[in-house]
Amino acid sequence: MSEKAERVGLILVYTGDGKGKTTAALGTTIRAIGYNWKILVIQFIKGSWTYGEMKGIKKLEPNVELAVLGKGFVGIIDDKLPRSEHEKAGVEALNYAKEKISSDRYDMIILDEINVALSLGLIDLAEVKEMLKTKPKRLHLILTGRNAHPDIIEMADLVTEMKEIKHPYQKGILAQKGVDF
Amino acid sequence: MSEKAERVGLILVYTGDGKGKTTAALGTTIRAIGYNWKILVIQFIKGSWTYGEMKGIKKLEPNVELAVLGKGFVGIIDDKLPRSEHEKAGVEALNYAKEKISSDRYDMIILDEINVALSLGLIDLAEVKEMLKTKPKRLHLILTGRNAHPDIIEMADLVTEMKEIKHPYQKGILAQKGVDF
Repeated sequence: MSEKAERVGLILVYTGDGKGKTTAALGTTIRAIGYNWKILVIQFIKGSWTYGEMKGIKKLEPNVELAVLGKGFVGIIDDKLPRSEHEKAGVEALNYAKEKISSDRYDMIILDEINVALSLGLIDLAEVKEMLKTKPKRLHLILTGRNAHPDIIEMADLVTEMKEIKHPYQKGILAQKGVDF
Repeated sequence: MSEKAERVGLILVYTGDGKGKTTAALGTTIRAIGYNWKILVIQFIKGSWTYGEMKGIKKLEPNVELAVLGKGFVGIIDDKLPRSEHEKAGVEALNYAKEKISSDRYDMIILDEINVALSLGLIDLAEVKEMLKTKPKRLHLILTGRNAHPDIIEMADLVTEMKEIKHPYQKGILAQKGVDF
């Protein structure tokens, strides 16, 4: 039996309020390039990545592809977009994800901040569940973002909650290059 | 003022029983290579990394250097080494870390599984604390492993606890290539 036929792709969820969710997803890409896998990262919320992450991931091409599809953070102070724009971007990201998942051209797909897009109601839970249910068997899917939906946790194989125990702002330290941006 | 003079290196701790600690530390290397930083990873426990991680990190050379110094897992079923051997390896790893940290040749050093080496008593807490206290100001240090000591958490700037919410073995799924090894 070929490796392709045998492999069981897992659904991983990194959630919680602590730092390390997207970072852990990025870490899995290092493991995956060790096997020369084909990896796709889809950003559901634009701007959620640090400058360093954007530049670093580019160095992992062509093994890793990055697709930025969201419209930036929703509802925060400098968000001047109407909600309908965010919803449109969310639907576009989801449709893109569905297409790429069903293409069966990837070994691992990271749906970055999809949990946030879901919890904000920008995308439809039933559609996400259907997408997970019908994924190619061999494909590993990683879903990141705080507030993972209980139904998604239910469907996942591995769920880690990143809990913030301590953050530099509590010590009055400003964001640092290479760690925060 | 130069960037080097301005930067405040942080002490980060990834702890807890969930998956994603070493993986998140690996993820930070992607961000760091985005800035073309010099990164050193020191393994305090040999064999704690997957085959994919070992191969993947090699692809990030020369930005990232990997030093394997531990002696394998301690006290588990196939551990045939006397404890004195583990202690010797722990002290060697700590001395190596001290030397590299004080060399000021790196932007980021990952002390992988050092929390475990500490909690097993293989290395001395006072020495680790002294090492953290005297690190070059610009250096980012990342300490991983479960059971982080309260004194280390106290000294750290950022602490995330990875909590296991769900693991594939609960579903009866065997370890999967690219995720578990």
